[in-house]
Amino acid sequence: MKIAVPRETAAAESRVAATPDTVKRLVAQGATVVIETAAGKTAMIPDADYQAFGAQIAPDRTATLKDADVVLTVRRPNADTLADMASGTLLIGSLDPFGHEAEIAAIAKQGVSAFSMEFMPRITRAQSMDVLSSQANLAGYQAVIEAATAYGRAMPMMMTAAGTVPAARVFIMGAGVAGLQAIATARRLGAVVTATDVRPAAKEQVESLGAKFIAVEDDEFKQAETSGGYAKEMSEDYRKKQAELVASHIAKQDIVITTALIPGRPAPKLVNSAMLSSMKPGSVVVDLAAERGGNVEGTVPGEVATVSDVTVIGYENMAGRIPASASALYAKNLFTFLETMIDKESKTLKPNWDDELLKATCLTRDGAVVHPAFAPKQPET
Amino acid sequence: MKIAVPRETAAAESRVAATPDTVKRLVAQGATVVIETAAGKTAMIPDADYQAFGAQIAPDRTATLKDADVVLTVRRPNADTLADMASGTLLIGSLDPFGHEAEIAAIAKQGVSAFSMEFMPRITRAQSMDVLSSQANLAGYQAVIEAATAYGRAMPMMMTAAGTVPAARVFIMGAGVAGLQAIATARRLGAVVTATDVRPAAKEQVESLGAKFIAVEDDEFKQAETSGGYAKEMSEDYRKKQAELVASHIAKQDIVITTALIPGRPAPKLVNSAMLSSMKPGSVVVDLAAERGGNVEGTVPGEVATVSDVTVIGYENMAGRIPASASALYAKNLFTFLETMIDKESKTLKPNWDDELLKATCLTRDGAVVHPAFAPKQPET
Repeated sequence: MKIAVPRETAAAESRVAATPDTVKRLVAQGATVVIETAAGKTAMIPDADYQAFGAQIAPDRTATLKDADVVLTVRRPNADTLADMASGTLLIGSLDPFGHEAEIAAIAKQGVSAFSMEFMPRITRAQSMDVLSSQANLAGYQAVIEAATAYGRAMPMMMTAAGTVPAARVFIMGAGVAGLQAIATARRLGAVVTATDVRPAAKEQVESLGAKFIAVEDDEFKQAETSGGYAKEMSEDYRKKQAELVASHIAKQDIVITTALIPGRPAPKLVNSAMLSSMKPGSVVVDLAAERGGNVEGTVPGEVATVSDVTVIGYENMAGRIPASASALYAKNLFTFLETMIDKESKTLKPNWDDELLKATCLTRDGAVVHPAFAPKQPET
Repeated sequence: MKIAVPRETAAAESRVAATPDTVKRLVAQGATVVIETAAGKTAMIPDADYQAFGAQIAPDRTATLKDADVVLTVRRPNADTLADMASGTLLIGSLDPFGHEAEIAAIAKQGVSAFSMEFMPRITRAQSMDVLSSQANLAGYQAVIEAATAYGRAMPMMMTAAGTVPAARVFIMGAGVAGLQAIATARRLGAVVTATDVRPAAKEQVESLGAKFIAVEDDEFKQAETSGGYAKEMSEDYRKKQAELVASHIAKQDIVITTALIPGRPAPKLVNSAMLSSMKPGSVVVDLAAERGGNVEGTVPGEVATVSDVTVIGYENMAGRIPASASALYAKNLFTFLETMIDKESKTLKPNWDDELLKATCLTRDGAVVHPAFAPKQPET
């Protein structure tokens, strides 16, 4: 059982799909683990650290992938990498299939069985395999750190002999995994934190982290709040009142962090240019949905832009900006999933194709695109 | 009484010597305040904000300085700016005179009476005028923010479904104003913080902020600790033991921040290249003494260097990287000092040249260099 980890080829990708910790665990399960030289360099993992835990280091991609039974990646492999993979290989990574149907078809054609980690079901058993959560958590943390660096003022209140520096006002839009970690981090740094979410039920979580929930709390809201769970659609009248409240709230904020990222879909616009120009010069907006076009009007994906004297941070891979921690959790997610396919007795690969986790994540098998979200469509060429 | 604030000319200087708040206070004292256009831009203060509090905006430096009674600056003015200042003008700023004797002589020759804020006595009355403290405090904060950004891991411990991210280990060398704020900020972010200082008496302050003091706590240390205040010199034997302890401690740290900056003197070397190479790849060192050559072997003043896979941050003007807060406190320091020279009744400038604050800070007067630290020497040309 050979498990291969090639170096990521995307320029913006600093993460790696295995760590010394997961290497050790895989070796304990009977695997031979081969890491392409320098694969961990940008995630601060020297080759020697992999070797110390039992990995072999291969000098190039071709040698890494030769005879591999499983290939672990962060991103969808490029065409050259795919060409080095033999028919029958299992590929596990964040394959970002939406809008890339042709590339998925090419994986099928190569005979590779590909699993896209983004499709992991959100069930208890798969929590430890949830790459979206593990990376969103770190993206939420890093968003606050980036905002603090770009912001020309201190985050905490400071009482000094020369006067008081007021605490920064930070507004988090979206209280999912990234938003909740952003709230916690901004609170740690001493900011005055507010947050909002389309789900009234998020109010309780936001408040439990010490932030104030921003919402029009009318009867409709209160009913939706207690009904719990995922949102029923709020009325148009409510949404209009809420939008007005949010717009007037943003004008008073120093830092806004937007987190409305839905994989495979364009990001909803939450902050328009009128809201940006209502903010004080030097304010900072971090758009965690930049890779899907952004929640903010004026976001330049991959860059830091200035709009109406407001700094708009649009990095596309925020988790990749904290690559060592992000790789540690991502690699662990992959290991935990791969472990379900390893037979403990024989120490060999025995994927149970009827397992709901495999079914939900498998994109290609036996030369065909098999995932229900992609199979029926005609692959683009 | 005209008070002028020219735009800073040094490329790395983002701060400004007045804010809308200090403008308002000066106007209330009967002053006319003239700000050069865009002087506050890099500190996030638009011209309009100054105007709203009673300042006039001048279109260029010459118009700003014409007929000024007092000129407020962050840095020592360059030759062009000085040439625009009339004889008899008071200049108040951080004039960094050590090693710049020729420039100070030129100020004297111009007939300008210059006050160097770095020489403010450290007495209770002058606490609110202490630019070294106000800027060091923010430098200590910003050092941790920069370290967090450069560090590829999270600072706080995070317990997630995919495993635990350990807390970063942060070591602060020097527990002065900058070091104490760095300790507080790193603690806020959830790091495990240790600190050291040549003064055993600093132990108590370090511990009061929740950090561990790193010192060889033998009898000599314990005696020095209770004797309090500034350090008596420790024995050579003690210093050797302490250096060994620090070296072995650094090898286990993720982030080291050095703060041993003494104005006008070369920075002591605290971290050598052997210590850097003992740290894990991806560790971060922030050298707050870079402007004086650095506490760290390998610091490149003004830049971010990589030494033995360790990121060494050597920004020369760390307070300038948080320019809005730094300007707010700096401007307040200057205002408070200038206020002592204004006669409240007549609303005119009446400096009391016998005041100990003026005596301590005055470099030049009536065409001569008058400060005891500079006057006896022959000015270099």
